[in-house]
Amino acid sequence: MDIYQRSLEAHRASQGKIEVRSRMRLESQDDLSIAYSPGVARPCEVIAEHPGAAWDLTWKGRTVAIVSDGSAVLGLGDIGPTASLPVMEGKAALFREFAGVDAVPVVLDAREPDEIVSIVKAISPTYGGINLEDIAAPRCFEIEDRLQDIGIPVMHDDQHGTAVVLLAAVLNAARVVNRPLADMKVVISGAGAAGRAIARLLTCTDADDRCVPVGQVRILDRRGIVAAGRPNNDATKEELAALTNPDGETGTLQDALRGADVFIGVSRGKLLRADDIRSMNHDPIVFGMANPEPEIHPDEAVAGGAAVVGTGRSDFPNQVNNVLAFPGLFRGALESRAMRFTNSMKWAAIEAIVEAVPEPTAGHVLPAAFDRSVAVEVAKRVAKAARDCHVCHEAFAPT
Amino acid sequence: MDIYQRSLEAHRASQGKIEVRSRMRLESQDDLSIAYSPGVARPCEVIAEHPGAAWDLTWKGRTVAIVSDGSAVLGLGDIGPTASLPVMEGKAALFREFAGVDAVPVVLDAREPDEIVSIVKAISPTYGGINLEDIAAPRCFEIEDRLQDIGIPVMHDDQHGTAVVLLAAVLNAARVVNRPLADMKVVISGAGAAGRAIARLLTCTDADDRCVPVGQVRILDRRGIVAAGRPNNDATKEELAALTNPDGETGTLQDALRGADVFIGVSRGKLLRADDIRSMNHDPIVFGMANPEPEIHPDEAVAGGAAVVGTGRSDFPNQVNNVLAFPGLFRGALESRAMRFTNSMKWAAIEAIVEAVPEPTAGHVLPAAFDRSVAVEVAKRVAKAARDCHVCHEAFAPT
Repeated sequence: MDIYQRSLEAHRASQGKIEVRSRMRLESQDDLSIAYSPGVARPCEVIAEHPGAAWDLTWKGRTVAIVSDGSAVLGLGDIGPTASLPVMEGKAALFREFAGVDAVPVVLDAREPDEIVSIVKAISPTYGGINLEDIAAPRCFEIEDRLQDIGIPVMHDDQHGTAVVLLAAVLNAARVVNRPLADMKVVISGAGAAGRAIARLLTCTDADDRCVPVGQVRILDRRGIVAAGRPNNDATKEELAALTNPDGETGTLQDALRGADVFIGVSRGKLLRADDIRSMNHDPIVFGMANPEPEIHPDEAVAGGAAVVGTGRSDFPNQVNNVLAFPGLFRGALESRAMRFTNSMKWAAIEAIVEAVPEPTAGHVLPAAFDRSVAVEVAKRVAKAARDCHVCHEAFAPT
Repeated sequence: MDIYQRSLEAHRASQGKIEVRSRMRLESQDDLSIAYSPGVARPCEVIAEHPGAAWDLTWKGRTVAIVSDGSAVLGLGDIGPTASLPVMEGKAALFREFAGVDAVPVVLDAREPDEIVSIVKAISPTYGGINLEDIAAPRCFEIEDRLQDIGIPVMHDDQHGTAVVLLAAVLNAARVVNRPLADMKVVISGAGAAGRAIARLLTCTDADDRCVPVGQVRILDRRGIVAAGRPNNDATKEELAALTNPDGETGTLQDALRGADVFIGVSRGKLLRADDIRSMNHDPIVFGMANPEPEIHPDEAVAGGAAVVGTGRSDFPNQVNNVLAFPGLFRGALESRAMRFTNSMKWAAIEAIVEAVPEPTAGHVLPAAFDRSVAVEVAKRVAKAARDCHVCHEAFAPT
C-alpha cells in the first residue's frame, strides 16, 4: 500500500489528527465551580483589568491559529478551505509534537485580502500568534503585511519558514564547499511566496547585524530574470528587481545560471538538466524544492557536478522541511510575547538550525526533520532575539 | 481561600484549561509522511472531490467553535473578547469531558451583527457546529437567525441550552406537584436571550408533536408584561407579545404572578419577596436563575410556600446548569450530521433530561450537573430526532 493510501486510511481511522483535551479535573461539583461558573468570573475580571494576564490565565499564551483559504495547498493548488483541513491539522499536530504549541486550524471561506485581513484581526484575541498557510501569491504578501500591527506575531510560513530552513541549508552547504556566501551568486527560480522571502533575507532588507549578505542574487519568474520595468510587473516584482538586479539584467534561467554558485528552486518540476548544472561555477549547490517533482532530479544534479543537492522530499538527502523552523519560531515568539516576527528572530532561527549540524557534509547539511532538539534550540534563540532586539522595542506586548 | 481565588490560581497553574493533542504518532520520517507531506495530499484530494468526507477524515465531524464577542459574560456583562476567554475555554473543557466533543474558543473583536455573521460564515468550513455564547440580546437573535443556513448547526447556548434545561426542570416539577403543564400559567421574568427561547419552546412556535404546550405564558421585561403596541417595543418584543399575550394584558411582575403556577426568572437578582410567592397558585414552582443573586433567595421562596425551588447556583438544590444540555445537543447534531438544530431536537433533549430523573422530588428535579450519563442519552435522542425528522429533510448534510 503506497504512502497516499496509508495516509487516507490513517486519517479515516483517527477522524483527523488533532483533538482538544481539558487541563483541569472536572469530576465533582467543586471542580466545575473552579473551572467554570462561578469561580471563572475571577480570571475574567483580572483579564478585563489587565489584558496581558490572558497570556498567563488562558491558552492564548501557548496557542497559534493556522489560517488558510486553501488557495495554494501543497502541489494541489486551489482546493478550497475544507479540503485544506488535513494539511492544517497536520501542521497543528507538528506544532504540538515539536514545540508544545497548541495550534488549531482556521480555514476560511474568503478570498479578498480585505476580508481575510479583517477576519484575522477579529479572531486574533483568541490566539497568541497567527500562522498564515497555503495562501496564494501575491495575495499572501498584502495579507501578511497588513497584519503586522495587530499585536500578535503573524507569519506566512510558506514564505518565511521555507526561507529560514533553506538559508540554513545553503549556509551549511557553503561550509561544505568552503566558499563564503559573500562571494557567491545565488539564483532563485520562483518569485512566489518562498522566493520573495528568500530574496529579502539574502539581501538583508531590514538592517540587521545578524544578516549574512550574499554576493549576488537573481530571482526569476516564468518570464525570466525579474528586472525593473518589464511589462506587467506588479509591485512585488518591482520590489524584487530593485533588491536583486540593480543593472536591469534580463535573460532566461539558463542565462542566470551561468557561473552561479547556488540554485534555489521554489517554482515547478523538471526545469533543469545536467548541462544547466555544468554551466554553473565549480562545486555548485542545488536545491530544487518543487513538489512532488523537483526542478531537477537529484541524480541529474549530481551528474551535472553539483557538490550539495537538496529537495523538499524525504526520500532524498538534505530534505528542506519547514518543520525545522515554524514550531520553534512560534514557540520563541510566544515565550517572549513578541508582537511580531523581526528579521533578527528569523536569523536567530537560521543560526540555530545551522549550528544543529556541527560538521555538515554534502549529504547532511540539515538536521533530521524529526530531531526534536532543533525546535527547542530555535525557540530559545528566537525568544532571546526578541528580548534583545534594540531597534524594535515595540516588539513586546505590555505585561 | 474562596472559590474565586482558587479558580484564579488554578487558571494560572495550568495556563488556561484546554490543550491540543495529536492523534497520530509523529516519531519517524514515515510517520511524518503519513500525517503530513506527501501522504496528506490524498485525504485533501478526496475532500476536494467529496466535501462530505471532511466529517470522516478531519476533526470537523467532532469539532465545535465556541464563538463570543464577550458582550454579555456571566454576571459580568460586557468585558470584551479577551476577558471572556476563560469562560469559553471552560465551556470547551466541558464539551470534551461530557460529550467527547472537541471544542475551541473563537472570541471576536467585532460587534455589528453583519460583521459577526460574515466572520462566522467564513470560518465555518473548519468546524462541525457553532456554539454562540455570551452575546448580548437583542443582537444574539439576529446573529443566530442569520446563521441558520450555513450548512452546520448553529445554536446560541444562552438561549436554547438554558431553555432546554429549565423546561426539563419545570416538567419534572410539574410531576412533583402532580399538575399537568397544560393547565399551568407560567410567568417568565426577563425577555432576553434565555427568556425568549423559553417562551418560544413553551408556546410550541414550530409545529412539533414533541412539544408539551403550557396553559398560559406571560413574559416580562423591566417595563412589565410584554404586550403588543407598547411604546418602544422592538421586533422581538412584538413577537413575544403575539406569542404569549393575545389579550394585550399589561401590568407589573406582581400583577402577572397572582394565581400563576410557575415563576421563571432569567433577569436580575432580588426582584421578589415571600409575599409575591404567596400570591401565586398553591404549590408554586419557582426558578430564579439570576447570578450570583437569584430573583428570590430559595429560603424566602420556600417561606412563601413554593413547592419546588431551583436556581443557577450549585450551592442550592435543583441547579439549572446548561452542562446538562449543550454537550449532548451538539454531540447528537454532529453524529447525525444535522445542518441545523430543530425544535424536535431540543424537545428530544428535554425528554432525555426529564427521564434521567425517574422519580423527581421537590429537592431533585434534575440530574446532577456532573452526571456523565445525561449527555450520552441527550446525544442519542437528539441524533435520533434529527434522523427521524420528517418535516425537515434539509436537516441532513450530503454524505
